[in-house]
Amino acid sequence: MATFLYKSDPVRGRRWAEVFKRRAPDLDFRIWPDVGDPSEVRFLAAWEPPDQLGMRFPNLQLLFSSGAGVDQFHFDALPPALPIVRMVEPGITHGMVEYVTHAVLDLHRDMPAYRRQQQQGQWQPLPVKPASERRIGVLGLGALGQAVLTTLAGFGFECAGWSRSRHEVDGVRCYAGAAELNEFLARCDILICLLPLTDATRGLLDIDLFNQLPKGAQLVHVGRGAQLVTADLLAALDTGQLAEAVLDVTEPEPLPVAHALWQHPRVRITPHIASMTQPESAAEVVIDNLRRFAAGEPLIGLVDRARGY
Amino acid sequence: MATFLYKSDPVRGRRWAEVFKRRAPDLDFRIWPDVGDPSEVRFLAAWEPPDQLGMRFPNLQLLFSSGAGVDQFHFDALPPALPIVRMVEPGITHGMVEYVTHAVLDLHRDMPAYRRQQQQGQWQPLPVKPASERRIGVLGLGALGQAVLTTLAGFGFECAGWSRSRHEVDGVRCYAGAAELNEFLARCDILICLLPLTDATRGLLDIDLFNQLPKGAQLVHVGRGAQLVTADLLAALDTGQLAEAVLDVTEPEPLPVAHALWQHPRVRITPHIASMTQPESAAEVVIDNLRRFAAGEPLIGLVDRARGY
Repeated sequence: MATFLYKSDPVRGRRWAEVFKRRAPDLDFRIWPDVGDPSEVRFLAAWEPPDQLGMRFPNLQLLFSSGAGVDQFHFDALPPALPIVRMVEPGITHGMVEYVTHAVLDLHRDMPAYRRQQQQGQWQPLPVKPASERRIGVLGLGALGQAVLTTLAGFGFECAGWSRSRHEVDGVRCYAGAAELNEFLARCDILICLLPLTDATRGLLDIDLFNQLPKGAQLVHVGRGAQLVTADLLAALDTGQLAEAVLDVTEPEPLPVAHALWQHPRVRITPHIASMTQPESAAEVVIDNLRRFAAGEPLIGLVDRARGY
Repeated sequence: MATFLYKSDPVRGRRWAEVFKRRAPDLDFRIWPDVGDPSEVRFLAAWEPPDQLGMRFPNLQLLFSSGAGVDQFHFDALPPALPIVRMVEPGITHGMVEYVTHAVLDLHRDMPAYRRQQQQGQWQPLPVKPASERRIGVLGLGALGQAVLTTLAGFGFECAGWSRSRHEVDGVRCYAGAAELNEFLARCDILICLLPLTDATRGLLDIDLFNQLPKGAQLVHVGRGAQLVTADLLAALDTGQLAEAVLDVTEPEPLPVAHALWQHPRVRITPHIASMTQPESAAEVVIDNLRRFAAGEPLIGLVDRARGY
C-alpha cells in the first residue's frame, strides 16, 4: 500500500487524515515522524522536508508544499527530478482576499488617521475620495493577485496589476516585465505586494521602488518578509514618500519585541496571518492532484524550479 | 421661471448648481440665502428647512432632504400636504458599503486584538474562523442594508437581515416585524444597525436587545446616535456580552472630548463619515425625481410621514 506522508503541524494533519480516509482510502496516510516503511512513501506534503530526502524515501514521486509558497524549500537539496507542487487552494485565496480588502479599505477611508484622532478625542471628518479616483496596483498576478483584484474592482477602485510574464484579468490593466514596472508603479496610490519570494524578488521593495510611486503612496505587503528592505521603508515613511504601510510579513519572523517597526505610528503589523491553508480544502486539492498524477494530467501548482515558483 | 432652492452646505451647493445648469437649464437654481422671488420657489432641497415654510414659499411643491435620512425634519412644522423625498443616491450607497465591509472584516479578522498586540510588540497569531461560520445580521433592509448584505454575502459570510416589513434579498435570510426580532438577534455574531431614526427605533439598541445576541457579539452602528443607549453599550461591553463596538454615529455629535466612549479599549469611533451624499450623483437623482414629478410618475424615496421615513 502506497504511503502519503504528512510533515507539518500535526493538529492540522489530523484534519487532513480525515479527508484522506474518506476521499483516498487506498492510501496509507501517515503523520511525521510515524513514517512506516520508508520504501512505501510515494507522496510527501511538508512545510520543511526532512534532510536527505532522496536517500530516505527512495520511491518518492511527488513533493507538496503544505502551505502557500515554496521559498522555504532548498531546491538544491531535493532530488533533481522530483516534481514539486505549490499549494493553490480556495482557503488561502479567501483569507487573502479578506485581508487585502480590509487593508485597502482601511487606507482608502483614512482609518489610521481616525484611530489617531480617537486617541485625542477629536471629532473631525476628513475629505473623502471616491473609489474610482483611488488607483490600486497589485504586484503578482497568480491566483491570489487575480482574486484580490477582482474583488477590489467590484468596489469601483481603479485597478492594475504587474507580473513577470503577461497576464490578462477582466477589468484590470495588466503590466508585464521589467520594462513596464516603472509605468505601473507611477500609477499606484496603494501598492500591494503578492509576489513569491525568489532571487528576483528578494529586496525588491527598496527605496528605488518606493521613489517610483506617487508621493504619499501606501504599501500593503503580504508577500514575504525578505522582499522588503526595512531600513528603506522607514526612510520612505520619514520623508513622506510613503504615507502608511501595512505589513503581514517581516524579516525576521517573529519580529523581535524591541524592533522599531512595532511602534512606528505609520505602520500596522500583523503576525503573518493574512491567509492560512485550510486543512480540509488543502487535502481536497492535494487528492485532486494525486488523481491528475495517476491519469497523466497536468498538476495544479507544479513548480518551475528555474523560475523559483 | 420656477426656482429650485438649495439650503445646505454652499460649497456642495455649487457642485449641484453645475449639474442643474447642464441637466435642468429651465430651472432657476439658487443657493440660500439668495432666494429671489419667494413665490417662484417650487422645489427646495435642504438639510434643515427654514421656519414657516408654507408662509414663506406659498407655491412650494416638493421638499428634498439633501442627505440620507429625514429625522432632522420636524414633520409637524411642515405644510401637511407637502411631499417629502429622502435622498437615495449611489454615492451614499458606495460609501456605506465600503465602511461596513471594512468594519466587518476588521472584527472578523481580529484586527482590534492585533492592534493591541502591536502596542505590546507581541507576535501572536490568533485562531481564524472561515467567513461561512461568521453570522452577520443587518437591521434595516432599505437600499443601504440590501447593498451591504449583497457585498458581505460575496465574501461568504452567513447573512441575514431584519426589517419592519417583509423584504426579500438574494442569498440572505430575511426576518420581519417585532415577532421575528429575537430569532434574528440570536443568530447575529456581528450586528449592523442601518435603521432610520423614528419613534420606533429611538433607543432600540439597549441592554435588552444586546442580551438577545450571542455572548461576545459585536456591534457596527451606522444608523443614528439616538438609537443607541450609550450606558447600556458600556455595560454590555463590561460584562463581555458585547466584545467590540464600531460607532460612526453618537449622541451627541460631535462627541465631547471628555466622553467615556473615546478611550474605551473595545470601541472604535469615527465622526459620522461612513457615507456622504455625493453632490453630483445627488443632483442627478433629484433631477430625475423632478422629471418623474412632472410626468406624474412615482417618486424615488417618497417619505411616508406616518412611518417616519
